[in-house]
Amino acid sequence: MNRTRLDETLSDLDADGYLLDASQEDANQLYLSGFTGPDPFLTLYADGEVHVLVGGLEYGRAKDEATADTVERHADYDYEYGGREERNDMYAAFVRDKGVESVSMPPRGPVGTADALRERGVDVAVDTDDRLQDVRAVKTDEEIDAIREAQKANEAAMRAAEDLIAGADVAGEGDDAEAGVLLREGEPLTSERVTEEIEVTLLRHGCALDETIVAGGAQAADPHDRGSGPLRADEAIIVDIFPRSKATKYNADMTRTFCVGEPDETLREWYDLTERALEAALDAVEPGATGAEVHAAACEVYEEAGEPTFRTDPETETGFIHSTGHGIGLDVHESPRLASGGEELEPGHVITVEPGLYDPEVGGVRIEDLVVVTEDGYENLTDYPIRFAAE
Amino acid sequence: MNRTRLDETLSDLDADGYLLDASQEDANQLYLSGFTGPDPFLTLYADGEVHVLVGGLEYGRAKDEATADTVERHADYDYEYGGREERNDMYAAFVRDKGVESVSMPPRGPVGTADALRERGVDVAVDTDDRLQDVRAVKTDEEIDAIREAQKANEAAMRAAEDLIAGADVAGEGDDAEAGVLLREGEPLTSERVTEEIEVTLLRHGCALDETIVAGGAQAADPHDRGSGPLRADEAIIVDIFPRSKATKYNADMTRTFCVGEPDETLREWYDLTERALEAALDAVEPGATGAEVHAAACEVYEEAGEPTFRTDPETETGFIHSTGHGIGLDVHESPRLASGGEELEPGHVITVEPGLYDPEVGGVRIEDLVVVTEDGYENLTDYPIRFAAE
Repeated sequence: MNRTRLDETLSDLDADGYLLDASQEDANQLYLSGFTGPDPFLTLYADGEVHVLVGGLEYGRAKDEATADTVERHADYDYEYGGREERNDMYAAFVRDKGVESVSMPPRGPVGTADALRERGVDVAVDTDDRLQDVRAVKTDEEIDAIREAQKANEAAMRAAEDLIAGADVAGEGDDAEAGVLLREGEPLTSERVTEEIEVTLLRHGCALDETIVAGGAQAADPHDRGSGPLRADEAIIVDIFPRSKATKYNADMTRTFCVGEPDETLREWYDLTERALEAALDAVEPGATGAEVHAAACEVYEEAGEPTFRTDPETETGFIHSTGHGIGLDVHESPRLASGGEELEPGHVITVEPGLYDPEVGGVRIEDLVVVTEDGYENLTDYPIRFAAE
Repeated sequence: MNRTRLDETLSDLDADGYLLDASQEDANQLYLSGFTGPDPFLTLYADGEVHVLVGGLEYGRAKDEATADTVERHADYDYEYGGREERNDMYAAFVRDKGVESVSMPPRGPVGTADALRERGVDVAVDTDDRLQDVRAVKTDEEIDAIREAQKANEAAMRAAEDLIAGADVAGEGDDAEAGVLLREGEPLTSERVTEEIEVTLLRHGCALDETIVAGGAQAADPHDRGSGPLRADEAIIVDIFPRSKATKYNADMTRTFCVGEPDETLREWYDLTERALEAALDAVEPGATGAEVHAAACEVYEEAGEPTFRTDPETETGFIHSTGHGIGLDVHESPRLASGGEELEPGHVITVEPGLYDPEVGGVRIEDLVVVTEDGYENLTDYPIRFAAE
């Protein structure tokens, strides 16, 4: 954790403290408490100190694991499996015990806790800027190493996926499967099969993930479609993997687009354009540049080639229909944004750069690298070839 | 989804509507919307209808997938990647468009949205009872089948774990490893290695999980310790697996405790006691019985044998130091609770029953089955032997 930045960011609050009520699923909570509690617990930042309050079952582990300055348990406030009101009384007592009469909570903090504290006379304001996001955005060397390690696992998984795709046969007219379908050992190669291989490979490398995208043909034209069913020759197949290290909880993210057989001319053009958009966007990455400028660099490549973007047509459903990238860390998507309105880049920002083109009539192409902003540009954390023909 | 129960439960709200602002990570959202949106979106229940509001990128998939009565997109409210205030204006417009001037939100709904709606004149009350939990607790046959299927995967994973443990050698004085350590092919068998095998097996069966517990010796005495490092002979090894089906999102849950070698007399007694506590608790499961009564049945077995429980000593850190079980469904832990104050059981409740004993000086023993409450008792959804000696 970047403690100096934390103190600077939270020092100008209009409140005595900053309060989180969340489990480890919440990246702010994991960051501020340093504790992987499975159930929601309180973390309070006040007077330059971080205080954690957990249940008795978690107390031992929290004392060992949490990076917070103090760890207390419910029993310290005479609370034992009581009801909701007693729990809220305990929360108010914990906050007051730290000399805090007013707290700021992030926008996605629980309204139940906020209102309960208000009823007990504690002022609660919403930190609409979600300022811990800005603290989290700038990574320490240790955090960058954690992302680097998750990315190594990601590359092994991408290798496994590409191997499966590259080694596939293609069903002909006489085969059992529909002509054009990719085959492994005579069986159709499905998105699900490739996804399974990715997931198993990640597990073998200490990572896990909730979802992966392996989407071919028209499915690839919906950037959020995870893909299902048989993959086919001559189509673009998007493989987008965003694993999380089980040990560090930090994420990586990478996309490649593959083809077996003969992509048509439009797909080839799209691939070349997207590779150029990636290069243009990467060239724009440096401290002081904004996420908006990086996004603009990618848009310009597409727009010059006549492809629609949200800049030229906010209503378009084809073309470059998402942002150029996003920060990544304890969340897969976090600050900064590489999009219209995207904020200024700083050394230590870890971001993905992922231009793409989409049209159900053509398919989808996306290429995504993971980079860290440095003092004089960026370092690419991605070590995986960019090539359309799977090999 | 149990629509009748939903309508009954939400019909007596003190508000015009019930509002969720969450992603699919939130079980209430997944249940009410039927949509696996990766980013937070709104779902509003009003006048017997469920309305969903998503961003443009999710619109196509939400229309296909959501079980809601209507699906709208941000563009329907003239919102396009604008700022926070514009987004909140859109939320208020969406709510008002459904004739709603007051909403109830669950306690963990986001305070940012609640306060923003209040600023725009919409009354927001906290549903402190989190009443969707009660709706979700009673499963339809389809939901029970989904849990049954996840449990099948769970049994395959437990089989893989037990095979690894049962097939281990034990390091002697002359070995490289410390004497007593379990060995596979000459290498220490670790919690991490068993966990990996569990996870890979689950993936091969269409399930995933965030965490698993494989904890031996003193680690097993902390019910929330996931376990790490080499496993040893003569110790109790707790294996607790709670996988989620990737297709249905429903969870299963099962625990077994294994031993290689010769457990001491205390551990043997604990195992027998825990098996009896499980049987006593299961015998108490029927419609009309309360979760508190089922918990009491398990406690009595332990208390009669002189083991501490939270009933006899609320401060105890050894003995039976957790509740007897919990409902399970889209969340691993949901209503009803088998604990002091636990609510009445109803047909369709799917619950785990998991008594256990813990003491760092002895180790930990826990046995957990998964059952569904039926009209006249319960059906055990678990098909896995209960035996201490791994085989």
